[in-house]
Amino acid sequence: MIRICEVGPRDGLQNEKTPIETKQKIEFIHKLAKAGLKTIEATSFVRPGAIPQLSDAKEVYEGLSDLTGSGEFPVLIPNTRGLENALECGVRSIAVFTATSNSFTLKNTNATREESMERIRAIVSALRSLGMQNEVRIRGYISTVVDCPYEGPQDPAMAAEMASQLLDLGCFEISLGETIGTAVPADIRRLLDSVLASIPAERLAGHYHDTRGTALANVFASLDYGIRSFDSSAGGMGGCPYAPGAAGNLATEDLVYSLERSGMTTGVDLELLAEATSYIEQAVGRPSTSRVYQALKAKRK
Amino acid sequence: MIRICEVGPRDGLQNEKTPIETKQKIEFIHKLAKAGLKTIEATSFVRPGAIPQLSDAKEVYEGLSDLTGSGEFPVLIPNTRGLENALECGVRSIAVFTATSNSFTLKNTNATREESMERIRAIVSALRSLGMQNEVRIRGYISTVVDCPYEGPQDPAMAAEMASQLLDLGCFEISLGETIGTAVPADIRRLLDSVLASIPAERLAGHYHDTRGTALANVFASLDYGIRSFDSSAGGMGGCPYAPGAAGNLATEDLVYSLERSGMTTGVDLELLAEATSYIEQAVGRPSTSRVYQALKAKRK
Repeated sequence: MIRICEVGPRDGLQNEKTPIETKQKIEFIHKLAKAGLKTIEATSFVRPGAIPQLSDAKEVYEGLSDLTGSGEFPVLIPNTRGLENALECGVRSIAVFTATSNSFTLKNTNATREESMERIRAIVSALRSLGMQNEVRIRGYISTVVDCPYEGPQDPAMAAEMASQLLDLGCFEISLGETIGTAVPADIRRLLDSVLASIPAERLAGHYHDTRGTALANVFASLDYGIRSFDSSAGGMGGCPYAPGAAGNLATEDLVYSLERSGMTTGVDLELLAEATSYIEQAVGRPSTSRVYQALKAKRK
Repeated sequence: MIRICEVGPRDGLQNEKTPIETKQKIEFIHKLAKAGLKTIEATSFVRPGAIPQLSDAKEVYEGLSDLTGSGEFPVLIPNTRGLENALECGVRSIAVFTATSNSFTLKNTNATREESMERIRAIVSALRSLGMQNEVRIRGYISTVVDCPYEGPQDPAMAAEMASQLLDLGCFEISLGETIGTAVPADIRRLLDSVLASIPAERLAGHYHDTRGTALANVFASLDYGIRSFDSSAGGMGGCPYAPGAAGNLATEDLVYSLERSGMTTGVDLELLAEATSYIEQAVGRPSTSRVYQALKAKRK
């Protein structure tokens, strides 16, 4: 069984300029859950105004109350204020984020790499003060693990060191973000050779962007290393707003198709997934970049 | 060094409904050659009217006379009549084609699989009668090596058997066509386990369609097996007109990027290649599906 963390509702929508209605986001997440996705990153509790598309985080999360018993709906938490707001809504699964590149965290979060780790430590401390450290699952994102759009190649040892720190802080899993989609399998092997020296494969996830069409090849390289958890976005929506030229998360359709065809189980129904993508594609007003979604659509015609 | 057979001018253009002018095709091929591509499938000597887009085969080939000393410009040959016409134009590199699937050859060429092999034998015999068997290079295509759109899964043993026959007939290389783009690395490994039992890797090429985004992963799987020759199409244009839902050859840009980034040499300049794609994209009036081409364009903006 492969674990898929669907990031479409958060990472996919956050850069879309067309405002998506709250009820559409809620409907989208319901359709994704119906397709069999068990982990769906729902939204981000950022400062109101920071990402206009996600300013309805509270309302979106509250619209999932009928689903939360049957899946995990993590939300992105940038700081302790975000944590407080999320906990108030009943959030019990959060994602924290940093990057190997100092330039990237500065541009992305207005914090040095060390300050971004400090924010994560503050979030964990706050949870402990509230006595909730065992009730809230924390997932850690590390971005720019291979290349940074500003700094270029990153030392795999930095990803390994940060992943260890995040696990020590209590993260149950570290998602390794290949943020700008430049990596090929050789890069992923170099990264994993370093990270797996200190961290078991079961604690890692691959988050690979498909900007240059290499994401699936990187998934297969990771499978060879024992990685069984991957992030993707329905229809391939989203990417990273702070990485010039970056476009497109790995599409969940492409990931699911490839894994199932390879004899692995994802629990996801491709036809139902395509319905979720079709729904949000219309709301966003931009066609999906997923090859499998396009092939499914062509077949139906 | 990886050998790339660029199939854009033939496979890429043959299904385009917008008529492309002969001089545009010639210019396109010149731009591809300038980008460093050494093998460019130029056109197909089919019966006039069979593929309207390629009815100017003679004129296109004659427009390449300044290039033929510095590269190989194979043309597709369906039968002895096509061979005669091609030889008259000075063609010295041809490609012949068949498929593992009987239903596919019937729909595609109005011949059974055995009849399609018979046509190839007739082409080779005609070359021998003319005493030109040592002057003309013959490449063999086998389509539907993994799945057929009409028959479904194909037995790898059939591809192996047909590849052996084609080599015995004098083909210098067999291109294994994953025609409908359903394959994942496990399929390619199963195929190569069978074919490589009787044929050395140096005599094989991978021709993988990117319909479901898996072509690059299949290239990497093939590299592990020692395959060093791949077919692709500038901008990802083309596919197969007889395969429902099929869209998109592997883009040469995506292939070149991935190989070069992996430390291999292709001899292709990506920027110049993108110029060729940009040129033909405008002529065709349909945007390229190549991820790398799109990323290069986004970067320039």
